[in-house]
Amino acid sequence: MNERRERVDKEKDFSAWFDYILQEAQLVDSRYGVKGFVVYRPNAMRIVKKIYSLLERELEATGHQQVLFPLVIPLSAMRKESEHIRGFEDQVFIISEASGGELDEKLVLRPTSETAVYPMCSLWIRSYQDLPLKMYQSVAVYRRETRATRPLLRAREFLWVETHDLFATEEEAKAQVMEDLEIAKRVYEKLGIAYIVAEREPFDRFPGADNSYAYDALLPNGHVLQVGTTHLLGQHFTKAYDVTFLDKRGERRVPYSTCFGPGVSRILAALIATHGDDRGLVLPFGMAQYDVVVIPIPYRGGEPEVEEKAKRLGQALGRDGYAVYVDISEETPGSKYYRWELKGIPVRLEVGKEEVREGTVTVFRRDTGTRVKVRDSELKETMKRLKKEIPERLRERAWENLGKRLVKAGSREDVLRQASEGMLILAPFCGERECAEEIKSQTGGYEVRGRDVNDESTPSQPCAWCGRPAKRRVYLARAF
Amino acid sequence: MNERRERVDKEKDFSAWFDYILQEAQLVDSRYGVKGFVVYRPNAMRIVKKIYSLLERELEATGHQQVLFPLVIPLSAMRKESEHIRGFEDQVFIISEASGGELDEKLVLRPTSETAVYPMCSLWIRSYQDLPLKMYQSVAVYRRETRATRPLLRAREFLWVETHDLFATEEEAKAQVMEDLEIAKRVYEKLGIAYIVAEREPFDRFPGADNSYAYDALLPNGHVLQVGTTHLLGQHFTKAYDVTFLDKRGERRVPYSTCFGPGVSRILAALIATHGDDRGLVLPFGMAQYDVVVIPIPYRGGEPEVEEKAKRLGQALGRDGYAVYVDISEETPGSKYYRWELKGIPVRLEVGKEEVREGTVTVFRRDTGTRVKVRDSELKETMKRLKKEIPERLRERAWENLGKRLVKAGSREDVLRQASEGMLILAPFCGERECAEEIKSQTGGYEVRGRDVNDESTPSQPCAWCGRPAKRRVYLARAF
Repeated sequence: MNERRERVDKEKDFSAWFDYILQEAQLVDSRYGVKGFVVYRPNAMRIVKKIYSLLERELEATGHQQVLFPLVIPLSAMRKESEHIRGFEDQVFIISEASGGELDEKLVLRPTSETAVYPMCSLWIRSYQDLPLKMYQSVAVYRRETRATRPLLRAREFLWVETHDLFATEEEAKAQVMEDLEIAKRVYEKLGIAYIVAEREPFDRFPGADNSYAYDALLPNGHVLQVGTTHLLGQHFTKAYDVTFLDKRGERRVPYSTCFGPGVSRILAALIATHGDDRGLVLPFGMAQYDVVVIPIPYRGGEPEVEEKAKRLGQALGRDGYAVYVDISEETPGSKYYRWELKGIPVRLEVGKEEVREGTVTVFRRDTGTRVKVRDSELKETMKRLKKEIPERLRERAWENLGKRLVKAGSREDVLRQASEGMLILAPFCGERECAEEIKSQTGGYEVRGRDVNDESTPSQPCAWCGRPAKRRVYLARAF
Repeated sequence: MNERRERVDKEKDFSAWFDYILQEAQLVDSRYGVKGFVVYRPNAMRIVKKIYSLLERELEATGHQQVLFPLVIPLSAMRKESEHIRGFEDQVFIISEASGGELDEKLVLRPTSETAVYPMCSLWIRSYQDLPLKMYQSVAVYRRETRATRPLLRAREFLWVETHDLFATEEEAKAQVMEDLEIAKRVYEKLGIAYIVAEREPFDRFPGADNSYAYDALLPNGHVLQVGTTHLLGQHFTKAYDVTFLDKRGERRVPYSTCFGPGVSRILAALIATHGDDRGLVLPFGMAQYDVVVIPIPYRGGEPEVEEKAKRLGQALGRDGYAVYVDISEETPGSKYYRWELKGIPVRLEVGKEEVREGTVTVFRRDTGTRVKVRDSELKETMKRLKKEIPERLRERAWENLGKRLVKAGSREDVLRQASEGMLILAPFCGERECAEEIKSQTGGYEVRGRDVNDESTPSQPCAWCGRPAKRRVYLARAF
């Protein structure tokens, strides 16, 4: 017990709490010694693998095939799409030498892979029969963030999935964007993460995109964390890299393309931040190391009975498909409670003297911190109910918290007051970059995150900030 | 059919055949444009994922936990273990600049991760209770090969798994080496790859190792391909990076360590090379995209019948747990045969007019190229038999081929003649580096690959090359 640190209050100081949880639950270690690079420990990698698996299953089910492109991109190839390189050139790592001496050509660590992918597409795509081409890869990408780096939240090496999809027509590309939004929705729902989807303002798009959509999860401190983006790239990249195809009438045409980049490191961060509490992680079923741990509580003369019963219950749950662990190690029950709560195991079963005598078992829910005693014969039903209830409750609570933060602003006074209260603001907006910059500087960092995709109407009210006619309703938020 | 290339003879020209298969079966594309870097296409990635899964399951079952260390290693940290850096310094890629300018500290792309791992271990390990520490990561590594690069066989970016294990005692570390040999054996057996395990000669060890073991698979041209290594690192790295622990008596001690590096890219290469034939890949059950494809062969007026039956058979096999695909696309049956044979699908079912009328199905085995007709009611049994027989036959054939190549040499004349015939040679050896170098230069490249681990005796015959007393029996082979 002595080695445990002082607990940190999540509500009062999210940032300190987050660092505390990463270290205390042995998720990532930020002491690696290269700025922006961290070590993922087993407790993080187990969750990372599950997030990858959720994403990859969705992508396979929607016709994407897995590929792997090289880590390195020739700087010259990256320069072909002029907007794109302007967007990334100030944040790439460059390999210009090897032990043998200078390289003939400078290589860039992928900040994203469009400029690796499209030159190959120009070799692979010949006719309309080669389209659509829907690919994804699960890799790390490298961006030399100039702002303060933070483990998982803002790193120079981060894990993601990137799709690269090419289509014969613009309509198909636009439909893909909608499919991406649905995939993201299904994955975030499974994780119980609340988020908003915004169509970025034209001045804030991905370098080389016709349109950009961002998924912003809400952190407990009211900041938003971008956990993924989808970009309608149109013909920018296909033109720049000479990708063409012969259509059914034998005419040469240029495909349209899209990309989708759900960020695995940041999804992990959002999962921790959304559900965690002062005792550690709180995870839905299927995401933690185990769904259930069973803890025998030995009493004088009764060790074999509790252990036998704990094992029996564990086996029964295992047969029902739960990932279950019966912890018969020599630690005290209190130590075991502490450790498994820290790791966010959804359900803990306690088996002591009373439970053996009465034919009952005590069921502890990690999400609510509540205990109920149920008859052994009722355990199966109880678990079935919790498997449904816990993820639902986590998700509902996350959306409730988002709902509480979300307010509408009609005037500059509204915006200033709501920003000072850390709210997530929905407001009519004129669409001008200058206005967005003024908002940012005068609110201490609130950004125009983009159009509310659920609201396509043009607001009748004027821009909440400048009073000029408004083009659309947008979210204003402080980004992490 | 016009677009298909001329087939290439595997036996006559393995190298050309290998390139042909990689391209024709759309496995990897070597036209990426950076020397030593290739693109893994979906047909390769499906197999790569299965190889990773086999390896990771074995490692998890033997108590290893997954981690992820950064790609970049400070050059200064890499220099701490002096032998290690001498071994790798001439083949690392160096990041010395970013778009913002020169970096404060030069970073190296991991050529292997010891020098990333051990500084963290010095933070994590405090007492004997923290040991053993058994970790693995599934990543790509980067080595600036100066020899001619070849896709999958010798690349500058290659996929592998690396374990990093630390123990309180040398005995445990040595036992881990034996466990690694068993894990490798189980995985290669499942893939049907024949290989030899050799304890490397002292002058040929991993930089910083007390002992090195290499797994060499046999290529059809008689060359060996190193598909993995295990190294007993002793205390070299733990000492260099100040890793210590307090033992039960409170005394400070230095742990012993090991690492194991099965090469996924090269295992894929060995899988292709070992079983493939002039029609394409040949894969055991569980490794191909599907275990079975069902091809309806429509006849005038009988389209619905064959398609219905094909689907029905497919569903039945799916229920039995096979990965099955019923190919009802509009291609001709011949085209379908071609494509699925190229991809190495173990079993093809053909359903035509006769099969519908007779209540039979034609079963084609990819490994033997033979067809048998079986009654519908016998299909389940037939498949069960093939699931066992095909992998067994592939494995046996691979070992037979290795057996045919493996010869014993007693004299210099033996070695010279057998080398000229492309044999894999087992010979008594004096243990001297100079003798190994002489063998290499005079045989046109035969290397001393190390001691036969199945034979611990000291040979009574003298060194087959120089005639001095022999220390052990070693393998001589031409490495790819």
